[in-house]
Amino acid sequence: MMQRLLYHSATDPGSGSKPGPQGDQLRHQHGQPPAFGAVSSRYDKCLQFSQWYPAMLQDAKLIDTKYPAKGFFTLRPWAVRTMKQMYLLYEAALEGTGHEPALFPAVMPESLLQKEAEHLEGFNPQVFWITQIGSNILPKGERLALRPTSETIMYTVYKDWISGLADLPLKIYQSCQVWRAEQESKALIRGREFYWIEAHDVFATMKEAEQQVLADIAMSEKVIHGQFGIPMLFVLRPSWDTFPGAEYTCAADTLLPDGKALQLPSSHNLGQKFSKKFDIKFTNSEGKEEYAYQTCYGPSIWRILGALVATHADERGLRFPFEVAPQQVVIVPIKAKAPADDELVAQKCMQLKERLEQAGIRTIIDASDKKPGFKYNHWEMMGVPVRIEMGAREAASGNVTLASRTEPGKIPVHESQLETAIRDMGQRLNATLKAEADKFFNDSFITCMTIEEMRENKDHRGFYRIPFCSIQDDGGACFDSLKSEFEIAVRGTKIGEDEKPPQGCKCVGGCGRDAELMVYAAKRY
Amino acid sequence: MMQRLLYHSATDPGSGSKPGPQGDQLRHQHGQPPAFGAVSSRYDKCLQFSQWYPAMLQDAKLIDTKYPAKGFFTLRPWAVRTMKQMYLLYEAALEGTGHEPALFPAVMPESLLQKEAEHLEGFNPQVFWITQIGSNILPKGERLALRPTSETIMYTVYKDWISGLADLPLKIYQSCQVWRAEQESKALIRGREFYWIEAHDVFATMKEAEQQVLADIAMSEKVIHGQFGIPMLFVLRPSWDTFPGAEYTCAADTLLPDGKALQLPSSHNLGQKFSKKFDIKFTNSEGKEEYAYQTCYGPSIWRILGALVATHADERGLRFPFEVAPQQVVIVPIKAKAPADDELVAQKCMQLKERLEQAGIRTIIDASDKKPGFKYNHWEMMGVPVRIEMGAREAASGNVTLASRTEPGKIPVHESQLETAIRDMGQRLNATLKAEADKFFNDSFITCMTIEEMRENKDHRGFYRIPFCSIQDDGGACFDSLKSEFEIAVRGTKIGEDEKPPQGCKCVGGCGRDAELMVYAAKRY
Ligand SMILES: [Zn+2]
Ligand SMILES: [Zn+2]
Repeated sequence: MMQRLLYHSATDPGSGSKPGPQGDQLRHQHGQPPAFGAVSSRYDKCLQFSQWYPAMLQDAKLIDTKYPAKGFFTLRPWAVRTMKQMYLLYEAALEGTGHEPALFPAVMPESLLQKEAEHLEGFNPQVFWITQIGSNILPKGERLALRPTSETIMYTVYKDWISGLADLPLKIYQSCQVWRAEQESKALIRGREFYWIEAHDVFATMKEAEQQVLADIAMSEKVIHGQFGIPMLFVLRPSWDTFPGAEYTCAADTLLPDGKALQLPSSHNLGQKFSKKFDIKFTNSEGKEEYAYQTCYGPSIWRILGALVATHADERGLRFPFEVAPQQVVIVPIKAKAPADDELVAQKCMQLKERLEQAGIRTIIDASDKKPGFKYNHWEMMGVPVRIEMGAREAASGNVTLASRTEPGKIPVHESQLETAIRDMGQRLNATLKAEADKFFNDSFITCMTIEEMRENKDHRGFYRIPFCSIQDDGGACFDSLKSEFEIAVRGTKIGEDEKPPQGCKCVGGCGRDAELMVYAAKRY
Repeated sequence: MMQRLLYHSATDPGSGSKPGPQGDQLRHQHGQPPAFGAVSSRYDKCLQFSQWYPAMLQDAKLIDTKYPAKGFFTLRPWAVRTMKQMYLLYEAALEGTGHEPALFPAVMPESLLQKEAEHLEGFNPQVFWITQIGSNILPKGERLALRPTSETIMYTVYKDWISGLADLPLKIYQSCQVWRAEQESKALIRGREFYWIEAHDVFATMKEAEQQVLADIAMSEKVIHGQFGIPMLFVLRPSWDTFPGAEYTCAADTLLPDGKALQLPSSHNLGQKFSKKFDIKFTNSEGKEEYAYQTCYGPSIWRILGALVATHADERGLRFPFEVAPQQVVIVPIKAKAPADDELVAQKCMQLKERLEQAGIRTIIDASDKKPGFKYNHWEMMGVPVRIEMGAREAASGNVTLASRTEPGKIPVHESQLETAIRDMGQRLNATLKAEADKFFNDSFITCMTIEEMRENKDHRGFYRIPFCSIQDDGGACFDSLKSEFEIAVRGTKIGEDEKPPQGCKCVGGCGRDAELMVYAAKRY
């Protein structure tokens, strides 16, 4: 069913990619978390993540969590500006691979949701139902579901857009919100309303659908790891975690600083399951009507932002990859002794800001009354990649002092080199963020070949790579057994490598059967 | 209460701005609609607008209207690409005047909507109520309203963001959808789901709030007229059309080709009405707590797109202002005799596309098998501003043939001048669209000083400028009387001019009172 897939996100995948028991050489070193620190020295990002994370969101004015409807959050300007950049980059990648943007209704009549039985069963418990307009109660049949995802909405419309091979492939995405009544919520990670992109593609053959799933994974790798610096493990999900109504699901897991896995985009091969229910047919090259083959792909920009904050922040606060940063440069004017010099400095700051914005570099001036040191700390906490300090001497000399969020010291640059110096600094910052994130991620894999070995490592924070019987339904009991003893969930088999346990190796789930697969398991969100 | 306001959108406002009976010299000439034609020669845009408009939306693949939930529409890629450009331009204008983007929840607990009584009464009949999650019916008090507008949502959150003068002014906008259960719907004009921007500002003084309403009008004029080429009349709305919960409402009306007014953005001075209900207070310069002053402003990008389509299209199809066009240039390769030449042409087309996109000019290549003439007609219908025809001779010579959507003939340009020539062509196109739209709009004003004069002109398609008693509640009966005899609605008094009827002139509404105001009335959407 699946082609060989070739992606593991982090540059050096550590033990995870090497079969066999030597994996535990690379066991995560407890008591030596990576050199991440606390927000305002209050919390340790790794060891106290559940306190650190909300404090970071609040300190940096990213999210307001006090809204009086459970599971709903307000995204403040700094978060929205970041999310906008992330959307721009993701949409460009989608359009670069032939996707077109569209916008579909946010609601669906209940009949649509009911068309695909597994899909309905999977989503129904979380669906918000509109049953009343003003004081009029809607008759059954006219009730509307707020979309938890848009398959049934879009495919109802697709039906009329497709009749022959000339209409295929159809590749459409929409950037939108969806609503699911989650019981637990955590800002930017799990909530009742989240912002995502959903791409829904239609093909004439199963082979193209399979290739699209691979292309979706390649896009996740390119954008989320390549541009946002967030490493991921790409897995084929077990049957019990397959998207409701799909043939199979591939998904990307990253690891938050507390060592728990967080699902980032998933991509689903729907085969003909939906096309048969929604009557999406085309006339094939032999002149016969055939049901189309479909895929869908759903990167949640909202959640990727959560992962971005968690992954890159250090003890001084947020850090953003250069292209994603809500503001890329902050100019801090340094007060001069003579008022005339202050005027000159202010003018120079405005000039530089205009010049940098002309060059497409997002720039702010902090002209508030605060002391420079306070401003430096503040904008470091906010994650602005580059700082320009502008005093009377700099304003007069044509030299500019740059400071990077990830490099020690200050770098004097002649004005004529400004844009280049800033962009270079941005690229070095990107490389630093990515290298640190990859190291943390790669160090988080442990291989355990027996249940005893797992027990010796029961406090491991990260991925367990373990021999397992099956990720089809018959592996469910072993999944439950690991879940109950270790609180870990089997996330699936690694895509791109056909990892087999050695002959005679038993499943760690306790079924007594021979292990057929190496799977990855972790505590999860 | 109101300062003198200075805006009338169209460059030469025609008779509308000149008080007195000479206005009817400029009466609209029936039987001579402006030189707009039919989509594919099927319908006349002005005289058969109700057939023309849906045909245009369908022919250009802008909107799919067949969704099985009443009043909900699908925006197809060509519409979404256009709307994205409109959002970018509008958001840049808002950020240029100190607004920051945020995103607030799409739902509110019913208690929030109930806080401001007039507001609740105004919106409640149109509210979609979520009363059930999965199969669980929500207890009263936990039901959620899908936002019909976001005052109550945002102000609940604002409360915690404001404590002193340092937090003011607060200027926030969100780009989002809202949902209102309208009875009638027309794609991009009125529907149950629409895309807009809502800006909600908070000030320390009433004066600043009044000035913000003027600034909002100035922004509407700058963006919608200046950049989108859509003329508008800015009016102070009568009391009965004031936003529920506002002190007063200013709004912009454009005119669709059928002569009916369509409301574009409105801006509301909320005074302290909401701040008192939502407890938005600040400590003023005397150390005392004071309720803040608020405004809100709501340009519906979705509806402005509808107005854009209707205003600028001609007998060959859509026309877009250059900055708004979903694609700005289409390159059409012309088939050569020798296959080697075709290869050269294809390469040249790719080269030009890359070059233009580097320069920020949105460009597509139409490499389909259709005949060039077919392609020319198609992309003219789709409204692409500039066409490049690329044959073997052009590819070899370094010359390029340009054609404009609004100019006759073709213009040869040397490649070295390409970007400049395209941008210049774009600016000429903008000027043409705006001039034609302004002329249609300005010619649509008629002044009638008596009811008899109105009866003589009862088939007028456009704005009546008429003497009227009052736009406070005591004018309501006269409003109803005009509504029932002429099917026109009094839209308000013109902002920026204190238009007074001559002494002794009577209200045309039949109350027998002296007219105090000149008001504008029209059939409306
Ligand atoms: Zn097992
Ligand atoms: Zn009257």
